[in-house]
Amino acid sequence: MNTLAAPVTGTRPIYLDYNATTPVLPEVLDAMLPFLGERFGNPSSLHPYGREARSAVEQARVEVALLLGCSPEEIIFTSGGTESNNLAILGSIRATACGGDVLTSVIEHPAVSRPCELLEGRGSVVTRLGVDELGVVDVEEARKALDHLPLLLTVMHANNETGTIQPIREIADVARERGALVHTDAAQSVGKVPVDVDDLGVDLLSVAGHKLYAPKGVGALYVRRGVPLRPVLVGAGHERGLRPGTENVASIAGLGAACALARNTLQAESTRVMVLRDRLWNVLSEGVPGLKLNGHPLRRLPNTLNVVFPGVRSSRLLETAVGVAASGGSACHEGGETPSPVLTAMGVARVDALGAVRLSLGRGTTEVDVAVAAEALVAAWRVLKGTPAS
Amino acid sequence: MNTLAAPVTGTRPIYLDYNATTPVLPEVLDAMLPFLGERFGNPSSLHPYGREARSAVEQARVEVALLLGCSPEEIIFTSGGTESNNLAILGSIRATACGGDVLTSVIEHPAVSRPCELLEGRGSVVTRLGVDELGVVDVEEARKALDHLPLLLTVMHANNETGTIQPIREIADVARERGALVHTDAAQSVGKVPVDVDDLGVDLLSVAGHKLYAPKGVGALYVRRGVPLRPVLVGAGHERGLRPGTENVASIAGLGAACALARNTLQAESTRVMVLRDRLWNVLSEGVPGLKLNGHPLRRLPNTLNVVFPGVRSSRLLETAVGVAASGGSACHEGGETPSPVLTAMGVARVDALGAVRLSLGRGTTEVDVAVAAEALVAAWRVLKGTPAS
Repeated sequence: MNTLAAPVTGTRPIYLDYNATTPVLPEVLDAMLPFLGERFGNPSSLHPYGREARSAVEQARVEVALLLGCSPEEIIFTSGGTESNNLAILGSIRATACGGDVLTSVIEHPAVSRPCELLEGRGSVVTRLGVDELGVVDVEEARKALDHLPLLLTVMHANNETGTIQPIREIADVARERGALVHTDAAQSVGKVPVDVDDLGVDLLSVAGHKLYAPKGVGALYVRRGVPLRPVLVGAGHERGLRPGTENVASIAGLGAACALARNTLQAESTRVMVLRDRLWNVLSEGVPGLKLNGHPLRRLPNTLNVVFPGVRSSRLLETAVGVAASGGSACHEGGETPSPVLTAMGVARVDALGAVRLSLGRGTTEVDVAVAAEALVAAWRVLKGTPAS
Repeated sequence: MNTLAAPVTGTRPIYLDYNATTPVLPEVLDAMLPFLGERFGNPSSLHPYGREARSAVEQARVEVALLLGCSPEEIIFTSGGTESNNLAILGSIRATACGGDVLTSVIEHPAVSRPCELLEGRGSVVTRLGVDELGVVDVEEARKALDHLPLLLTVMHANNETGTIQPIREIADVARERGALVHTDAAQSVGKVPVDVDDLGVDLLSVAGHKLYAPKGVGALYVRRGVPLRPVLVGAGHERGLRPGTENVASIAGLGAACALARNTLQAESTRVMVLRDRLWNVLSEGVPGLKLNGHPLRRLPNTLNVVFPGVRSSRLLETAVGVAASGGSACHEGGETPSPVLTAMGVARVDALGAVRLSLGRGTTEVDVAVAAEALVAAWRVLKGTPAS
């Protein structure tokens, strides 16, 4: 282990990067451990070891379905959000003999935009909806684009960087009138806000375990009954022939437990986190004149605060505020000093986009965390700006 | 939880189905737990939570590489053996502008045969090598087929049902002379026999975590430096752009620990298990006149014993021998009363194939297990045959 990457010892930084990934909740780990221990069977085996594993998978399927408001047989387990998105997008287009066109947005995660590009390279026409300055897709623009009869509409439910929630229901209503399938990447919204497949009016919906306190490496795809889909990975007949490979029993059990927890505590926890997030915004606004909010002030995930610290680079700010672990964009894009494509699409100026910090709160975030983190961020900004503390 | 699928209580059946899946070893679980706990970061994040996660992934990559005799940068982490096989087969064919033909065998796992069929449907010529009565691919037949210059040769290292080990090196030597890429599905062999990518002469090699005491839902693909490959799932740029999605850190750490254990104890453990396996064969042979071995008597995985119990159905035998958990074929094929395609390909008569039982031993198997299981199997066979105990 090199020194840079040694485990964090002593006081760990305050974690405000829940949109990048969440810890596994103790209740989730408890649900997993039997299957990393004595109940290790392969769900395809007919003996008792297999049957108890199969039971765990099917129980978890019920829990995921209950959270999303669908039937258990409409849930396919995958290795995560990326695979769910690939299966939804590539699988639905491949299921039509003649391929088909796609309507998406300019602010999708690469797990959606890349499959769309792949289809584009194979002859599908892909149309990308723009967003307004709050990061919201225009329903009217969607309506016009849907006149061209795409086979599939895929627009994310909530944006990973800004937390802005899209008007999925409104777009979906139009899309379904036109006969298009509707997919939404709900990786960021499931567990943070109510997500009901019928309320949203979607045919396909992607879930990523590690964004809702389940482990990394597990996800789910909701597939409305009757929606034609082809597998992307092929092999044995697991998951109704749509996703081959021995089921990841322990992690699936964990995802089930995480969904049960989300269902039972979502409302109270969302409110708690939103209050903390708004307090964080208030304290930061007081300490950082000119602080700007990115994203919709109201139609936004309750845990997400994306702000521009004026006149500094977010990378430098986060290096300086060592007591805070947050992101200068989405984790998947880090490492470069290019401005976030999401913010750019919203018309945020390059200099502002380079100063944007995503602060995302979660179940572990406390009042003290918020106070300490705000102080550290304000202090770091002052150091970089050469502003004396007030 | 329905009663059928309730957890096994009281005495658990003796597990002789290690080829279906293995338990997670305590040392492996220990390696995983920190990442299901405090070290939960996303490896793409730049803050300390991310860096410690990244470090774990890269350490595990070193361990997998050490076991396989390759460089860490030649290892791609996947969600399991099926995905590794899909990536190897579909990814290598897609990497050539004009597609390409495939040479495979008739005894591959669906995770290999189905991707080959998919390619066949898209214009690739797929040739399937037969096997002899011991389940071994013919090197001469391979040599002739390679004259047709397939782009890819994909033949499994060891068969999941019989344990027969294929002459990969011999075929690979011919294939490489002809300029073909060589892939082997080593899901069943890694951790049971020495697997070295240079000794085997392969370009691509698939590993399934849950066959070698790592958890389900994680695998690896060895990709020899310079081998052209395209991703099958697309998204963000993880795993050198070949496998998108947030890394399954805990399970990857587990796979690394399992590979380290395999490397350190493989020789001793293989010998121990082989002695037990051969004892099982001896006791069964004494108790069951006409018992037949399926597979190669010598060139075979040390843990695998596939035998025909004459005159009975394996499904009935395993229902009767309630104290033993074993398989009547590979787990992925169970549920039907069709004879195993692998045994059929070897020329095993239908009636014999329906009486075949796969007994696969592992690290948890003891001398007592073998004695008790043998007795239970012999007793069950006698009950079904109406033969009085001797």
